[in-house]
Amino acid sequence: MSKSIFVIGGCRSGKSRHAMKLADAVGGKKVFIATCVPQDEEMNQRVAHHRSERGGGWETVEAPLDLAAAIADGAKRADVVLADCLTLWASNLLLAETDPENSHIIAALSELVSAIDEAACPVILVSNEVGAGIVPENRLARLFRDEVGRINQQVAAAVDQVIWMVAGIPMTIKPERAP
Amino acid sequence: MSKSIFVIGGCRSGKSRHAMKLADAVGGKKVFIATCVPQDEEMNQRVAHHRSERGGGWETVEAPLDLAAAIADGAKRADVVLADCLTLWASNLLLAETDPENSHIIAALSELVSAIDEAACPVILVSNEVGAGIVPENRLARLFRDEVGRINQQVAAAVDQVIWMVAGIPMTIKPERAP
Amino acid sequence: MSKSIFVIGGCRSGKSRHAMKLADAVGGKKVFIATCVPQDEEMNQRVAHHRSERGGGWETVEAPLDLAAAIADGAKRADVVLADCLTLWASNLLLAETDPENSHIIAALSELVSAIDEAACPVILVSNEVGAGIVPENRLARLFRDEVGRINQQVAAAVDQVIWMVAGIPMTIKPERAP
Repeated sequence: MSKSIFVIGGCRSGKSRHAMKLADAVGGKKVFIATCVPQDEEMNQRVAHHRSERGGGWETVEAPLDLAAAIADGAKRADVVLADCLTLWASNLLLAETDPENSHIIAALSELVSAIDEAACPVILVSNEVGAGIVPENRLARLFRDEVGRINQQVAAAVDQVIWMVAGIPMTIKPERAP
Repeated sequence: MSKSIFVIGGCRSGKSRHAMKLADAVGGKKVFIATCVPQDEEMNQRVAHHRSERGGGWETVEAPLDLAAAIADGAKRADVVLADCLTLWASNLLLAETDPENSHIIAALSELVSAIDEAACPVILVSNEVGAGIVPENRLARLFRDEVGRINQQVAAAVDQVIWMVAGIPMTIKPERAP
Repeated sequence: MSKSIFVIGGCRSGKSRHAMKLADAVGGKKVFIATCVPQDEEMNQRVAHHRSERGGGWETVEAPLDLAAAIADGAKRADVVLADCLTLWASNLLLAETDPENSHIIAALSELVSAIDEAACPVILVSNEVGAGIVPENRLARLFRDEVGRINQQVAAAVDQVIWMVAGIPMTIKPERAP
């Protein structure tokens, strides 16, 4: 049975590194799906930093928008697929189209959930918690926060395991541990 | 014995939905106490969205400021009272009065804790974590963050159970699980 | 064996108070290392507030930059050392020197980890989670967030126990509890 895992945490909480460790533990052919398409020097540096942390043995695919197709496609030829991260994917979707109801995001999210369900190999997904600070003054930032929250909730509901990261420490929050 | 529960998490972490599920599990006559009095279209939409999620079987009471009285009153005639959310209540209190020591908030918080203690039926309270982002540049936002933190701590200390929400996944953090 | 503990949480999550409780449980001679050197009235008030919460039996040392030396020095004569907090230390380091690679922070962090490892008495460290909100628009704030994240991860990896605070409730996330 293929097992899907969702790794969520704040910025610099060690999410990407932990997700890679989980993928390495699966082993075999690994596909990395990057939702980030660097637009400036700062992003280039972050992407290069993450790539150097990944090391060898990875095929990298860029999927700024059509994440579901990239997962479906990657899962056909890989032993494990890692998608990093859903926050940038949400940002790309928000900027790609202007829809007051964001119905294109809802549709894309529904396709993502299906792709996770149907993948023949384990799928690991990474996202940021962005909602635990002060309400942003910027309206677009509030909208973004709402969309990321919606995505995080639906992906967490769809996967087999959810891991919350704090300071590099993983905490399994789904399935719930016995009290 | 009536059991009080505090549900806390970031924005769009599924707090309100989980709190409603907990209230539905108690069943019987349910009183919903809204601290939100919508001031603009965006807030109107959020309130309407939450109301549609609640479904039937709820009596709704608005209590932007006197939350303690609304809980005491609701608990007399209901089987469960749900107050959502303490963050907006803090905001309403901060804007209602200018007091350098915020003694009116301290007094209101003390009344809230008494109302939770004395309620004859289960009381469920919802609040946001707002302190896990960058320190806000705006002084009022810092003050708000401090007051919400104070409220969250005292309410968490007063209730029987505290649930931390991440991406729609509940984690019981009080009572502490055996190591 | 001396046991090191890292207490991390959002603003006003009860970190400092819990860390003090842990130090009081060790007892004996207690050294408090303050990384905060108040620069304005608001900070003065916060420092005075924390000091009044600490009560008697504490020797206070200020170490805005050389935290490792202060811990090494304090551990020689104390039964427990409490350093509060790493977030301000990161801020002091960032402002003290302009280095595009922040190599002075990396060096200071490596010294801090050694000081924790080598301390003859328990060391308790406090830090803020600052990465769980929206990406800050301000470049320096993003840099700060990255550096704090790096520090939090390395300190969490170095200590024996990590405690995540929410609304005054401690949750031990390291060592991991049995599933």
